[in-house]
Amino acid sequence: MAAEPNGDPESLTQPFLALQRSTINSTSQVAIVGANVCPIESLDYEIAENDFFKQDWRTRGKMQIFQYIFMKWLLCFLIGGIVGVIGFCINLAVENLAGVKFVVTSDMMLQRRFGMAFLVFSLSNFGLTLFAALITALVSPASAGSGIPEVKAYLNGVDAPGIFTLRTLFVKIIGSVCAVSSSLLVGKAGPLVHTGACIASILGQGGSKRYGLSWKWLRYFKNDRDRRDLVTCGSAAGIAAAFRAPVGGLLFALEEMASWWRSALLWRAFFTTAVVAIVLRALIDVCLSGKCGLFGKGGLIMYDVTSSNVAYHIVDVPPVLLLGMIGGLLGSLYNFFLEKVLRVYNLINEKGIAYKIVLACWISIFTSCLLFGLPWLASCRVCPADAGEACPTIGRSGNYKKFQCPPGHYNDLASLIFNTNDDAIKNLFSKGTDDEFQYSSIIIFFVTCYFLSILSYGIVAPAGLFVPVIVTGASYGRLVGMLIGSHSNLNHGLFAVLGAASFLGGSMRMTVSLCVILLELTNNLLLLPLMMVVLLISKTVADAFNGNIYDLIMKAKGFPYLETHAEPYMRQLTVGDVVSGPLQLFHGIEKVANVVHVLRTTRHHGFPVIDEPPHSESPFLYGLILRAHLMELLKKKAFLSDPVPTDIDAFEQISAEDFMKRGSGHYNMIEDIDLTEEEMEMFLDLHPFTNASPYTVVETMSLAKALILFREVGLRHLLVIPKISGRSPVVGILTRHDFMPEHVLALHPTLIRSRWKRLRLQFPRLLKLF
Amino acid sequence: MAAEPNGDPESLTQPFLALQRSTINSTSQVAIVGANVCPIESLDYEIAENDFFKQDWRTRGKMQIFQYIFMKWLLCFLIGGIVGVIGFCINLAVENLAGVKFVVTSDMMLQRRFGMAFLVFSLSNFGLTLFAALITALVSPASAGSGIPEVKAYLNGVDAPGIFTLRTLFVKIIGSVCAVSSSLLVGKAGPLVHTGACIASILGQGGSKRYGLSWKWLRYFKNDRDRRDLVTCGSAAGIAAAFRAPVGGLLFALEEMASWWRSALLWRAFFTTAVVAIVLRALIDVCLSGKCGLFGKGGLIMYDVTSSNVAYHIVDVPPVLLLGMIGGLLGSLYNFFLEKVLRVYNLINEKGIAYKIVLACWISIFTSCLLFGLPWLASCRVCPADAGEACPTIGRSGNYKKFQCPPGHYNDLASLIFNTNDDAIKNLFSKGTDDEFQYSSIIIFFVTCYFLSILSYGIVAPAGLFVPVIVTGASYGRLVGMLIGSHSNLNHGLFAVLGAASFLGGSMRMTVSLCVILLELTNNLLLLPLMMVVLLISKTVADAFNGNIYDLIMKAKGFPYLETHAEPYMRQLTVGDVVSGPLQLFHGIEKVANVVHVLRTTRHHGFPVIDEPPHSESPFLYGLILRAHLMELLKKKAFLSDPVPTDIDAFEQISAEDFMKRGSGHYNMIEDIDLTEEEMEMFLDLHPFTNASPYTVVETMSLAKALILFREVGLRHLLVIPKISGRSPVVGILTRHDFMPEHVLALHPTLIRSRWKRLRLQFPRLLKLF
Repeated sequence: MAAEPNGDPESLTQPFLALQRSTINSTSQVAIVGANVCPIESLDYEIAENDFFKQDWRTRGKMQIFQYIFMKWLLCFLIGGIVGVIGFCINLAVENLAGVKFVVTSDMMLQRRFGMAFLVFSLSNFGLTLFAALITALVSPASAGSGIPEVKAYLNGVDAPGIFTLRTLFVKIIGSVCAVSSSLLVGKAGPLVHTGACIASILGQGGSKRYGLSWKWLRYFKNDRDRRDLVTCGSAAGIAAAFRAPVGGLLFALEEMASWWRSALLWRAFFTTAVVAIVLRALIDVCLSGKCGLFGKGGLIMYDVTSSNVAYHIVDVPPVLLLGMIGGLLGSLYNFFLEKVLRVYNLINEKGIAYKIVLACWISIFTSCLLFGLPWLASCRVCPADAGEACPTIGRSGNYKKFQCPPGHYNDLASLIFNTNDDAIKNLFSKGTDDEFQYSSIIIFFVTCYFLSILSYGIVAPAGLFVPVIVTGASYGRLVGMLIGSHSNLNHGLFAVLGAASFLGGSMRMTVSLCVILLELTNNLLLLPLMMVVLLISKTVADAFNGNIYDLIMKAKGFPYLETHAEPYMRQLTVGDVVSGPLQLFHGIEKVANVVHVLRTTRHHGFPVIDEPPHSESPFLYGLILRAHLMELLKKKAFLSDPVPTDIDAFEQISAEDFMKRGSGHYNMIEDIDLTEEEMEMFLDLHPFTNASPYTVVETMSLAKALILFREVGLRHLLVIPKISGRSPVVGILTRHDFMPEHVLALHPTLIRSRWKRLRLQFPRLLKLF
Repeated sequence: MAAEPNGDPESLTQPFLALQRSTINSTSQVAIVGANVCPIESLDYEIAENDFFKQDWRTRGKMQIFQYIFMKWLLCFLIGGIVGVIGFCINLAVENLAGVKFVVTSDMMLQRRFGMAFLVFSLSNFGLTLFAALITALVSPASAGSGIPEVKAYLNGVDAPGIFTLRTLFVKIIGSVCAVSSSLLVGKAGPLVHTGACIASILGQGGSKRYGLSWKWLRYFKNDRDRRDLVTCGSAAGIAAAFRAPVGGLLFALEEMASWWRSALLWRAFFTTAVVAIVLRALIDVCLSGKCGLFGKGGLIMYDVTSSNVAYHIVDVPPVLLLGMIGGLLGSLYNFFLEKVLRVYNLINEKGIAYKIVLACWISIFTSCLLFGLPWLASCRVCPADAGEACPTIGRSGNYKKFQCPPGHYNDLASLIFNTNDDAIKNLFSKGTDDEFQYSSIIIFFVTCYFLSILSYGIVAPAGLFVPVIVTGASYGRLVGMLIGSHSNLNHGLFAVLGAASFLGGSMRMTVSLCVILLELTNNLLLLPLMMVVLLISKTVADAFNGNIYDLIMKAKGFPYLETHAEPYMRQLTVGDVVSGPLQLFHGIEKVANVVHVLRTTRHHGFPVIDEPPHSESPFLYGLILRAHLMELLKKKAFLSDPVPTDIDAFEQISAEDFMKRGSGHYNMIEDIDLTEEEMEMFLDLHPFTNASPYTVVETMSLAKALILFREVGLRHLLVIPKISGRSPVVGILTRHDFMPEHVLALHPTLIRSRWKRLRLQFPRLLKLF
């Protein structure tokens, strides 16, 4: 619940507004976080410039500055190191868990005990999925799904409780390992981004008070601004660890995740991802000697497609353009279906934990049946004589799975589908394998991946989207390559890479970051111009239909994400048109009873403080005080017996640390504060604790311009002052919710049909019925 | 001259300020642009929300939106295409000009006519330099130097006349070709960035009115916001074309050039650089058949160092760390020296055009002597038996230059120094040549490059810094590689790449963009982790001493560049402490004579408009009007005979296009407007043309917070309003200059010794004497 300036009928300070407005901001202040509905709140990025903080700040010496700078870099180092190790461990665990499962199953298949093989396969999948779903649903529902929408919303200024707790961290890591190992078509990149953000936030919180693990040097990070920077670095580290793509991870954080960016932050994030890269490199060096079980050289995804000579000419461009166009179309359809499926799943999930878990189990069973059943449709093929590796592949990953085939033969569909996703991608990207797959197998695989990944995402378990989209796109690209055949100089592996790019572009809608991630994944810089073209085309095509997949999910979940650009109709409105009243005010010296009453009866997070005669000549706006600060004052009982202003030095018992923002989810509750009758009759001097220079706009400013200010500066509250100095020095408060298009359009329904909207094509009605 | 609110003694509207301040903003409003001193001005990024524009905006239909969007992308396409072609042509011209020069000289050397060879060599260098210096000094002094500081300042909101004219464009291209061909140690990347920005700006201006080449569809780009976006794309295209590094160019624009960035812009810049990449690829394909003279396969810099296996282990890390550290130190020293040399050169250049040209000529002669003379110091070496190429190299580029040596021998220093910079870099980066160079040659080459590039930059000709820094860094890295020798697994070519990275990091202080540019240049992704480490170390070390080279140059040139972060002492000041008075105001309905007088006697660019009784109950701030708009009103003679407000429809003779911002350097001058005595007695209704919702801050807001608003929203004027509504509704105007540290410190000298300054080490006093 972000503070919006609505009030209750019994408000003590009578509203004395010139523009009395009755509309109440109705935009939701709860959102679906992970798999549960939670109240959400805005973050404070504004510097609260009150006398108290200013004094604390003046007393800081050189030592404190040094501590702060040192800690900033140390934390980035720790984030990079820990995320690197966790990313490695997740891969190690997945490779070994899934590897053992496939080895055991394959051995049984070799002995032609097919029924037993299916049982082992499906039961182990079922068990792993069940475990992941159980811990997610029971221990931490916030860790369901990819987590990227939640982190993205956090970086935009929306705080959801529980997304960055230790509990979420553990569930996310273990759940992600189980879900991926259980052959569900889900990825580990999204969960790793959430893990990275989580680690960053926990480190920045200064350890845990409960376990006595807090460190004094961390106190400077107890505010939302510094924590936001850390979380940005953490999310960059996540992608860097998932794909071993340090530059790509950094760009991902920059392009997709972060809402505010400074070049100083770019540097720190670069440092973080460099640490990740080095840690991964060192750990993989350790594994090269074969001590890591089934985790081999290619364990961490790194689909090396270096070919000595990527020669392409002008004739290769038209097929690539076509590939990009269709990829974009399929990608936007993917987003469309995914959103619909999520809506259906939410209906199921709402019914209770049992429903959530049953849903997850059904998906697991369905997946196992498909993965085991479909390869039987494919006919066995004779091993090629010039294969670069053993054929059929037995007991390890490789291009040629034997499955049910006789010796000397392989099952091409099983090589893709009865395999880990990473190996499937590797097979699709591999060069010199242009004749390996049949049309029917590739088509079956593509269709299966497309729909299975849509169905798998919404279950109550950590589940990423990157890898499913890559594997679907790669099979699509391979298909296009086979159709074009010898009309192109590009081999089918390169087509698969371009197909993955087109699908990623069509669904995630990033450009630079995807381009760099794919280049780092495939280690082939010569493909760059074609990759750029494909990404541009697919994004352009897809943008004509709907938005970025994460934005769609965020919207469906109800996060009030603030866009950079103002909707065109916002230019036609003034802030006075959307600000809602009546307004809740405090006086510079306020009775304790009043403060308590207001805090109890409203859920606002910011209150304007005004000074009135006799304390000043005429009423004027002194500033803005935060609910959290009021609460702290009440808790510390910093009361006065008489309503006279006091010196700031009188507040000796209060230290600046009391006012620092604690970790996500730790709030004082007004209900917990006990005050005697006597105390209720005393007074609070709010002046030293009021932010005396809040940002203000005049009520006649257009909403679009106010949004620019609000968004660019990263505000939580924006005070609206009257054009002509009248009775009241403040007209209202704008918060995040007042800028939400839904809220604005609800207030001004005539704008819905405004021609100044973003142009977008609609999918045909038939699809709409879905 | 940005508008600051100082006034003149005879100001007609008497200042009625509560806080009368006498200090006048003394920060310079001229800067050195290229090689000349010019007045500078701020750009208007704020949306001027006046009734007139609002009405014009409401009348725009779907067609106009389509035109705008279409043109946005078409312009990016054109920018990419044109910059790609120009970049190719520059390379083609340089390779052929310098190539012919070296071939002719080498032929004479083969015939042992050394004197003649020197004469041809030095005279052709002299002629080319003289020509470049002459056209630069006489035709367009704004095109001297790299241009990156100027473009960076433009993107920060500082407009210098002449930087984006057709004339500058031509001089920059031709001058750059001549300067680079003349063997001066200057680069072509910087000039290409300026060229790209120039092309973008010219395209956005809607052609040239003088030559009847304007297009109606381009009218939506006649404002500073859209032009800024185009220039950002143009500068990205510049680096993309210079290094054939599309992603690197984009990141360069993002990290180093742009002050404001939106993800929509990221996408458009990505598109632009993709076009560049494709155009270059296509043109190089054409040249592969050998039709481009001496411009061969490797003509466009692309130092391919792909080695099948870059194996490095933990033992390789310490030398790399050391390399980064020393590289950072040398890089910051490089910046230090360069700035000192530029100061000395400016003293010479100030004396007149003749002095500038003589200076350039001396540098050319000095360079020729060094390049031809130094190789004689190196002893001839026997050609290696296993050389991958012909040895010695005769009549073309290659690792083994013959110079004065007998057959079967080569001169290693000549291979580096008596060569184009691109070839020298290629030789240094090449693998399998670990025994090619002697210590003495590499040391001589390194020292020569280090100081020669510092001396060459400041001459009156287009000159970039990238290539000189890369060549110096590469020789330094090679030297380190030779010193470490067999203690490392890395070959000397890779050490040269890392050395170039450390030098770039130490001097340019970028991280991601340099990393990607170097990766794209060398086509070796496996080097990534080491590259990241080197860049981080060298930047960290260098940052302890001084700033980024472009920032130093910008500061030396006097550009009021607005940093993202506020200086810590700004938190101790309120905006009231820096705003200077008296203030120049207009009334909503103002006498023409008053307006003309104020415009004649001040050089402000924005004036607050207030309404006073009898037009309103109490005086209030109506908004802010721009000088350019007032000028247009005077020119159109939109006068009223009586001081009564008029309807907006009364201004039929005025169209929105009249108020659009014209290209750089096209201004109405108040002296050109002739008004009769009668007209002077008439009135202007300023209301419809006044931006009715300017951004405002309260006078008690801290300067740091106001700076955040000013910088993030991209303002030109920020109105300061009083805390307590008193007599005046506005206290002053803040402009860019009021936030400059020099200005603030001049007003509050006590802050100079504040401990809240950025910590920086000083170079020893000995160096300071330089």
